[in-house]
Amino acid sequence: MKALFLNASLKKSDQTSNTEGLAQEVIDLYSKEGVESEVVRLADYNIPYGIEKDLGEGDEWPQIFEKVKQADILILASPIWLGEKSSLAAVAMERLYGSSSETNEKGQSIYYNKVAGAVITGNEDGAKNAAASLLYGLSHIGFVIPPNVDAYWVGEAGPGPSYLDDDGQENEFTKKHVEMLAYNTMHLAEIFKKNPIPPKGNVME
Amino acid sequence: MKALFLNASLKKSDQTSNTEGLAQEVIDLYSKEGVESEVVRLADYNIPYGIEKDLGEGDEWPQIFEKVKQADILILASPIWLGEKSSLAAVAMERLYGSSSETNEKGQSIYYNKVAGAVITGNEDGAKNAAASLLYGLSHIGFVIPPNVDAYWVGEAGPGPSYLDDDGQENEFTKKHVEMLAYNTMHLAEIFKKNPIPPKGNVME
Amino acid sequence: MKALFLNASLKKSDQTSNTEGLAQEVIDLYSKEGVESEVVRLADYNIPYGIEKDLGEGDEWPQIFEKVKQADILILASPIWLGEKSSLAAVAMERLYGSSSETNEKGQSIYYNKVAGAVITGNEDGAKNAAASLLYGLSHIGFVIPPNVDAYWVGEAGPGPSYLDDDGQENEFTKKHVEMLAYNTMHLAEIFKKNPIPPKGNVME
Amino acid sequence: MKALFLNASLKKSDQTSNTEGLAQEVIDLYSKEGVESEVVRLADYNIPYGIEKDLGEGDEWPQIFEKVKQADILILASPIWLGEKSSLAAVAMERLYGSSSETNEKGQSIYYNKVAGAVITGNEDGAKNAAASLLYGLSHIGFVIPPNVDAYWVGEAGPGPSYLDDDGQENEFTKKHVEMLAYNTMHLAEIFKKNPIPPKGNVME
Repeated sequence: MKALFLNASLKKSDQTSNTEGLAQEVIDLYSKEGVESEVVRLADYNIPYGIEKDLGEGDEWPQIFEKVKQADILILASPIWLGEKSSLAAVAMERLYGSSSETNEKGQSIYYNKVAGAVITGNEDGAKNAAASLLYGLSHIGFVIPPNVDAYWVGEAGPGPSYLDDDGQENEFTKKHVEMLAYNTMHLAEIFKKNPIPPKGNVME
Repeated sequence: MKALFLNASLKKSDQTSNTEGLAQEVIDLYSKEGVESEVVRLADYNIPYGIEKDLGEGDEWPQIFEKVKQADILILASPIWLGEKSSLAAVAMERLYGSSSETNEKGQSIYYNKVAGAVITGNEDGAKNAAASLLYGLSHIGFVIPPNVDAYWVGEAGPGPSYLDDDGQENEFTKKHVEMLAYNTMHLAEIFKKNPIPPKGNVME
Repeated sequence: MKALFLNASLKKSDQTSNTEGLAQEVIDLYSKEGVESEVVRLADYNIPYGIEKDLGEGDEWPQIFEKVKQADILILASPIWLGEKSSLAAVAMERLYGSSSETNEKGQSIYYNKVAGAVITGNEDGAKNAAASLLYGLSHIGFVIPPNVDAYWVGEAGPGPSYLDDDGQENEFTKKHVEMLAYNTMHLAEIFKKNPIPPKGNVME
Repeated sequence: MKALFLNASLKKSDQTSNTEGLAQEVIDLYSKEGVESEVVRLADYNIPYGIEKDLGEGDEWPQIFEKVKQADILILASPIWLGEKSSLAAVAMERLYGSSSETNEKGQSIYYNKVAGAVITGNEDGAKNAAASLLYGLSHIGFVIPPNVDAYWVGEAGPGPSYLDDDGQENEFTKKHVEMLAYNTMHLAEIFKKNPIPPKGNVME
């Protein structure tokens, strides 16, 4: 089983991402259960704006999309800015949407039978809003959303430490939600591998 | 298999609800496939404000909650006001949340293995925002969100006809989404009836 | 100058409201500057669901609406549930919207020249989302939104102390935002009292 | 008086932008009243991801920010994707936020006394959600939000014509909102030019 993490940090991979720090907690549980993980730091890639599968010369989205197609589990990981998911997370959602008319062998959206979740960190406030946006968008284009797949950490109101700085990693609520996200994505990916969604009523036109 | 519709129209059942008009399209498909439907018009009930399972004398939420527990599929149906779900839909979400610490026989949230969807109508704009709020909230408390379970109709920007007034029922996009919502909720409810979500990593504390 | 606070706590006024605790900080600054404040605990009133100015027998909204009309400043105060404003805050917005076709002597919406702000508290996460919903809705029906009028307190991710329990009142970010909300609503109310918005382009039809 | 439009269309200026088509209606009213307008098509610029005023080599945001500083009125114009503002609109908000610690001569945020509005178009649904996000964010960093400054056009649910294709320009609701946005931004910009917001309680630390 394969999990793909799209990390929508605004920083390239030469800088530490707190969001990736939290994603790592999920990866550790996946690893323990034999699920292979790959993290794509979106800021490292040239991903032009637009709603098409391939925007031509220099567009590196198609290679990321290949990884999405191979994955059983997709985790969108995002920092919070102004109480929302990052702009790069929005880019990822737009490009996923632009690729959503591709179908599987039954004629369903290519994302059918894949499950999705969201990992969010911020100094403060905005995680549920970011998660709602990501999980709704992913559901709208064909992913299954298992229960309790919004794992996040935010601090108290106002500027302050980030997830990796301080005691974020000790937060029991966050740890419990990491566990629920990890296991429920695995459980449901397993269930849909064995019991794919029948095509009645949901094939693309 | 049983489907429960919570209709969060602001009008009591002595008045026509456009949202119920759209819900009826889903019910017709359920009926064709042998799924039993029940619609609760929330405005007919006395549902006090608060985050508890039972708020005491006169609280009629507990009888609605019994229906939720019996259902395999829960559909939140809401009109749009100010670009959002209705206040009564918010009341339903708060009360569902207040009842979410109840567990099933495995110790998971009582909502595990149930699937949810959203039906939305409005004269104009706000359906996706309302659906995102409802589906995220339902996922956060334990429901599974299948792909493409946001069926809605809205008209062009500004005041105008409602779903039942005019040609709303002829909208091909809405009809397609009604079909996807109906079949995907049935497919997944069936799958989880036979393959319940294992408890590893997700039992309540 | 008069300020009206609509407190959308789900609790009646026989119970302590953390949101009212934060609102009190604003009231103290208003009082210091000679602005008179009144707080309406919405849960104490019978406010039926619906989009009309007066919903008939027993509807207590009309008496609240009279207070809105007398006020120069309107503050919507709300707790957070499921990362959003409360259902009672949604009720208040729907009823304010339902009364928005009333006009002033120039033919503008009755809310013109009034300024609005939002006060939010929660154990954790959701304040900006609640504020965005409230401030957008108030702007959409005719209020002016001054800069920095979203004063909130939330704790770290997960269950935990409420605003009045612990050190919430010591949070420097929250205190600064209380001050900005209080002064900017007063500054702008004063400015529009002396310089009302001209009617060109904005009278109701 | 100067108005700056940031058009967050995903298309560069060699392609027609429906959103710019709607913005043009606002520009025509500004022009009639002697307000000078400039439109920046964000997709034409190299605007790196990040929360800093200047992200170094090749960053073209600083030249856009100079225009923001010169403007009395800022209009964020965005198309709708997945029921939300565009990713480029999110980039603009992040960069505006990253520049918000700059102060004016009184020590207030550089955005004080400037007024903001939002122009949105889409084939369908999402305008109010996009407007709420933009207007809240702009208010949170220091802009004044006048009444009724969310001018939008969307079609009926589902794929369909864009604003410029068909009869979008004849929509009376949209035309009325264009007029309210144009006049209220002008009225308030004029009012704050003559009556700047006093610094008591709102200077940056």
